[in-house]
Amino acid sequence: MLINNKHYRTIWPDPENQEIIQIIDQRHLPHRFIIEDLAEVNDFALAISEMHVRGAGLIGATAGFAMFRASLAASTKNFDSDIQKYADQIRSTRPTAKNLSWAIDRQLTAMAGAESINDKIKTSFATACAIADEDASFCKKIGQHGLELIKKISESKNGKPVNILTHCNAGWLAFVDYGSATAPVYAAHHAGVKVHVWVDETRPWLQGAKLTTWELKEEGVAHTLISDNTGGHLMQHGKVDLVIVGTDRTTFTGDVANKIGTYLKALAAFDNKIPFYVALPSSTFDWQIEDGLTIPIEQRSAEEVLKISGITDDNRLETVQISPDHTNAANYGFDVTPARLISGLITERGVVAPNRDAILDMFPEKKGVNSGQET
Amino acid sequence: MLINNKHYRTIWPDPENQEIIQIIDQRHLPHRFIIEDLAEVNDFALAISEMHVRGAGLIGATAGFAMFRASLAASTKNFDSDIQKYADQIRSTRPTAKNLSWAIDRQLTAMAGAESINDKIKTSFATACAIADEDASFCKKIGQHGLELIKKISESKNGKPVNILTHCNAGWLAFVDYGSATAPVYAAHHAGVKVHVWVDETRPWLQGAKLTTWELKEEGVAHTLISDNTGGHLMQHGKVDLVIVGTDRTTFTGDVANKIGTYLKALAAFDNKIPFYVALPSSTFDWQIEDGLTIPIEQRSAEEVLKISGITDDNRLETVQISPDHTNAANYGFDVTPARLISGLITERGVVAPNRDAILDMFPEKKGVNSGQET
Repeated sequence: MLINNKHYRTIWPDPENQEIIQIIDQRHLPHRFIIEDLAEVNDFALAISEMHVRGAGLIGATAGFAMFRASLAASTKNFDSDIQKYADQIRSTRPTAKNLSWAIDRQLTAMAGAESINDKIKTSFATACAIADEDASFCKKIGQHGLELIKKISESKNGKPVNILTHCNAGWLAFVDYGSATAPVYAAHHAGVKVHVWVDETRPWLQGAKLTTWELKEEGVAHTLISDNTGGHLMQHGKVDLVIVGTDRTTFTGDVANKIGTYLKALAAFDNKIPFYVALPSSTFDWQIEDGLTIPIEQRSAEEVLKISGITDDNRLETVQISPDHTNAANYGFDVTPARLISGLITERGVVAPNRDAILDMFPEKKGVNSGQET
Repeated sequence: MLINNKHYRTIWPDPENQEIIQIIDQRHLPHRFIIEDLAEVNDFALAISEMHVRGAGLIGATAGFAMFRASLAASTKNFDSDIQKYADQIRSTRPTAKNLSWAIDRQLTAMAGAESINDKIKTSFATACAIADEDASFCKKIGQHGLELIKKISESKNGKPVNILTHCNAGWLAFVDYGSATAPVYAAHHAGVKVHVWVDETRPWLQGAKLTTWELKEEGVAHTLISDNTGGHLMQHGKVDLVIVGTDRTTFTGDVANKIGTYLKALAAFDNKIPFYVALPSSTFDWQIEDGLTIPIEQRSAEEVLKISGITDDNRLETVQISPDHTNAANYGFDVTPARLISGLITERGVVAPNRDAILDMFPEKKGVNSGQET
């Protein structure tokens, strides 16, 4: 999508040296636009765990390139065991994100199918690029399917914008391009359908305030920032037509793990009879876990709750502590929204009801992948 | 309650000169402890609108003293019309807060009953002190009634602490002393019943992160700060035994206007079958409004969403902007939790079910105050 009217993806091989992978370091947005070179496997692991990159699809794409870098770093003598070691290191960076292990496993399978080490390296580069390209192409398709939902609502709005609430950043910055939750918004905007986005700021990390506002602004989409507490009030007063969020892991039964606070918005949407959709490329499905509440939930540093970074009036970056010294804080990264609160899942293949039968009918190649889903 | 082991109230007449009223300027907490002198009626209006003082009971007590100050400022010639002008000015500072107009009206009635201007001034001082004293005494009683609820839950906890979630600051800093939502917590703590408080940080103003943490710490009550997004997840996983919040206005039918985001926590508590109580002195009841959703909801400056203040590692106060320049933001101060989501109201007279009949049975002197409540 656009940054200062120039097209970017969130991750790409350096055109001068394809062994270096470049990313937008999202920790500095929206105040500074910094491109970071990832050269060592450690750089990738740190970029994921410390959230230089974040978001379901982008974590997957970064893990894909990390495995390519691992193939360059692995010793000739112990190639396979070195690769496994690197895979374990990368896999441990973010426990909730499904795309992470999905991309690593796809790389391991691809490399296992190649003969020589040289072939394995070539294969892993091709696979990393394919993961990134597919992510962008799937998000584009999600946009088209979601556009139909927005168009339908728009018909009853008498020319007024469709008000869409989103939580966190499931924008193009969370993927390689387009985004999941934002893809329908961008598709509508480009198709001339009037939209306005309520952006949850999304504490503690403030992905909404820092990233979603920024990408919507760069793309020219109308939006209003709100505290995470606000959505229920807006819904009670008819100011929200549709909720679209992303997800970091979705069970094949339709439960959705997404950024902490998503569950609260789903409850409010349900209470006010407002459609609540979750957008995801199928790489985010977990075909093993049946009960969303058993998805491992990442706990992050208390610092992220206690301290907030931003820019001062005179353009200095500062970090401020908001609470008394030595305050105890808990920082759960995600919560789980049960399928019963979700209107539908917007995938690259179309919109599907959040239940086992419908999901496996849309992805029939997954029937039999686990023991729980015989239909 | 205690600050650095010394007992304070949130507002008091200066012992050296009772025409000056002193408050804790809460904008600087927890980083700086500053006592402010309120000398002119304008000082009181600004202290309320700019949130040097905030919270249901304290807004009422401050309005009470503001009317005393108004009685000193009013001209002998046009005393009554001057008083009315000051009353209008103070009444306009915070539209949602019920205690504000309640305290002003009580002062107007009290002054109307006095003969000479001198008597009116004396009466208004006595009334202001009575409002403050009553607030403290009612909160203490709320604590005793709430303590019974906590004790009952504690019996099934096998010596583990009762986990209480609260939103915003309905602590002693929101009243004259004890607080409403915190009064039962303090009562339990002092009675040796183990409690632990989950403190919602409460964006945008961060009353939880800045004030509730601070007063719990000063009083020695165990607590953990969380982002406002976190409560649903904690409730899904059995980590919350009880929710207690305050309210800025409660209809006689049991709907509760409280800090924005309260409704979302009530939905989550209901979905997880966790008791959700609202603590209030009866001065917070609105005996006229039947449908909570018609309570006027204050909209505040976008700046409060876009900018966050705190302290740097080297102890400087700084304010940082969290979003791109020129971001549009909305800032609704309160939302309404419908009675159907509330387990009970903890008042100075006892715990009452959130419905018209039960409330009017507990406050029979209010039967007939409005046209809607014939029982």
